[in-house]
Amino acid sequence: MALRFDNKVAIVTGAGGGLGRTYAIELAKRGCKVVVNDLGGDRHGSAGSTSMADKVVGEIKAAGGQAVANYNSVEEGDKIVKTAIDAWGRIDIVINNAGILRDTSFVNMKEVDWDLIFKVHVKGAYSVTKAAWPYMRDQKYGRIVVTSSNAAVYGNFGQVNYSAAKHALIGFSNSLALEGAKYNILSNAVIPTAGSRLTQTFMVDALKPEYVTPLVCYMVHDSFKDSGKLFEAGAQWYGTLQYYRGEGKVLQNATVETIHDNWKAVSSMDKPKHVASIAEQSAMLMDMLGSLEAEKSSGGSSGGASAGGSGGFPSNIQSSALFQEIADGIKADPSSVSKVKQTFTYIITDNAGRELGKFTLDFKSATPSVYLGDCRNGNAAVTVTVADQVFMDLAAGKENPQKAFMSGKIKAKGNIMLLQKLQTILDQKKKSKM
Amino acid sequence: MALRFDNKVAIVTGAGGGLGRTYAIELAKRGCKVVVNDLGGDRHGSAGSTSMADKVVGEIKAAGGQAVANYNSVEEGDKIVKTAIDAWGRIDIVINNAGILRDTSFVNMKEVDWDLIFKVHVKGAYSVTKAAWPYMRDQKYGRIVVTSSNAAVYGNFGQVNYSAAKHALIGFSNSLALEGAKYNILSNAVIPTAGSRLTQTFMVDALKPEYVTPLVCYMVHDSFKDSGKLFEAGAQWYGTLQYYRGEGKVLQNATVETIHDNWKAVSSMDKPKHVASIAEQSAMLMDMLGSLEAEKSSGGSSGGASAGGSGGFPSNIQSSALFQEIADGIKADPSSVSKVKQTFTYIITDNAGRELGKFTLDFKSATPSVYLGDCRNGNAAVTVTVADQVFMDLAAGKENPQKAFMSGKIKAKGNIMLLQKLQTILDQKKKSKM
Repeated sequence: MALRFDNKVAIVTGAGGGLGRTYAIELAKRGCKVVVNDLGGDRHGSAGSTSMADKVVGEIKAAGGQAVANYNSVEEGDKIVKTAIDAWGRIDIVINNAGILRDTSFVNMKEVDWDLIFKVHVKGAYSVTKAAWPYMRDQKYGRIVVTSSNAAVYGNFGQVNYSAAKHALIGFSNSLALEGAKYNILSNAVIPTAGSRLTQTFMVDALKPEYVTPLVCYMVHDSFKDSGKLFEAGAQWYGTLQYYRGEGKVLQNATVETIHDNWKAVSSMDKPKHVASIAEQSAMLMDMLGSLEAEKSSGGSSGGASAGGSGGFPSNIQSSALFQEIADGIKADPSSVSKVKQTFTYIITDNAGRELGKFTLDFKSATPSVYLGDCRNGNAAVTVTVADQVFMDLAAGKENPQKAFMSGKIKAKGNIMLLQKLQTILDQKKKSKM
Repeated sequence: MALRFDNKVAIVTGAGGGLGRTYAIELAKRGCKVVVNDLGGDRHGSAGSTSMADKVVGEIKAAGGQAVANYNSVEEGDKIVKTAIDAWGRIDIVINNAGILRDTSFVNMKEVDWDLIFKVHVKGAYSVTKAAWPYMRDQKYGRIVVTSSNAAVYGNFGQVNYSAAKHALIGFSNSLALEGAKYNILSNAVIPTAGSRLTQTFMVDALKPEYVTPLVCYMVHDSFKDSGKLFEAGAQWYGTLQYYRGEGKVLQNATVETIHDNWKAVSSMDKPKHVASIAEQSAMLMDMLGSLEAEKSSGGSSGGASAGGSGGFPSNIQSSALFQEIADGIKADPSSVSKVKQTFTYIITDNAGRELGKFTLDFKSATPSVYLGDCRNGNAAVTVTVADQVFMDLAAGKENPQKAFMSGKIKAKGNIMLLQKLQTILDQKKKSKM
């Protein structure tokens, strides 16, 4: 089955030559309407003739395809997107490919070497993607590719600026993928290994740009489903890269010496594990804290429910792990909540609203505690009712607390303004906690 | 054994509160002289009072430590470094910690939200590190830490700007590590999980900044040896993260359909493997090309030495793999070298200068080829003599070709200007090949 791009509109930046040109031509061959963006010039970042983009547009048209040229800098993303909208009324695909090099050792790097690289690669990708985003969101369709580099992933001599910029684009794409998910906007990064130092040494071009083209074109096709990923193409090899996390080590009340003495375990990648999201990362931290607590308990602590032994909270409630973490936290440092001086009861339900359990956070008593059941210290200042899964999603950042309130997923009784006020305090904490 | 920082001078940016403050205090406690940099103010990026830095300096001095305050923006790295030089005449440690947040959904993001985040996190880290670099280089000692984030690695809602900036810092550090290696300048990134969304939901601070402090202080200690790595600390767990690469798949002359049909294999992470450097990445690509060639040969091709069967070149010469790649490349696409029209003979030696083998690149004949031995098509235009290891290092980008020439590691006879000219052509190719 041929993979077509009929009725789709794409922007390819830096499409006057190299990889960008091959993307534009291949997409157009498959029915895509293409904005061929290129400043022209010598690709050192200085403006030049418009002939490069025109030439590619000419090639596409000669082959029966549809294309328009655009000569704006990628920093003028709105103008590039306007070219697509003016010509065809929509924008479906953005391939952020434009780039320049300003290679120099770090000691000799000038501010302009740094700024120019960030302007073109990073601000450029931001600007074009940002201008396309509202259209993609409204039409609930979008495919975005950013171009990273081996220099970013592994580092490279003389490319401190370039590797920083190219690495930024991966982080950019990672968050775009999350925000785009519910609008069917996918964002991914590609590492093209075309023209490496290896081949330069031999003055031979075994790593043709054409080997990268089919991967990138597939990444922006309708049938593509991955998002927030990083793919690589070079020398006819195709694959993917992901961060893996070592097993690491829990070190209680560690000093610099503790870290030093345990460095082998901390830095070991013997048991690498991929972590897919912040939610999963948090869950892993919780698991580790849980096992730590279990160790402590088996070590002789009597651990009542209010003290938060790991078996203290119902195992059929996922959120138990979260309340356990709070219990552990306040046990380790009661002063952390000493300013709160309030009590909160959380009624955790299943998805049908049936109560699974009640947890009370008593931050009012001289010794703060977390326990099962209703507040024992007068009425709770606030009683919150929330489904187990929603609470987990909130904790993982998958749900926005405010929206959850607005939509009724969280219900609160009592001094609701108190929750508001606490949220404000928290936001300030967050800002000072980077 | 206590890990001390006597006679060392450190800059900690954003040290007026949070994590930065804990780094400054801990380092000072251990004998380090510390520049406590903080703009003051409300940490929204607006300038404020100088009291935050002063307060931390006061704390340090009261405990018998040495510290000076600095109130410059991190974009004025030269002034921050000047504070260290004026006070103590040197700078050994830079902890790039200063940061702000401008959280907003991408659709609502303003240009200023993007620019400000990059100014503070990225340009700031560049500016301070850049100003410290020449001192570190001259004294052959330096320890650099940049602060990344889970939001960068996993993406996060409302933080497209922040995750891009925080991811840039990892790429920045990766290349600094390479350039710093021979000057004993180490650069690493840290992901502090302090004050996550998880804890915010509970208004509890189980993830104290103090849990991150010992890791970061160890990362800037004299005894620390890792560089170009990424470490994580949170909730008393310490570990590391690395990129892993899937096995992927070699797909010859792939179309978009080929990629689509083989997507499971391309995107599989069933056999994850860490790749440490561009050199290793190139070597892996070569291995794959080699096995591809072996497959082809076993499939019936007669494959003489000049056609480049994988067994055609001596296995005791590492560079054989490189010549094999050229042979494969020109076989796949003879036109790629059709403009070269020259012959080159490479004499590969061991480290003592003894000849291991001769390879000729004949790009002059109608059918270009690579073969063992002297040029069969008249005298080679250039004859290059180089040690096997040096040649591998050149290919991997570990050696600078020009310097290798100047220092006599590469010797060339014949039309040397031709190599120069070819290099220029290559540099242009490189620039158009991003």
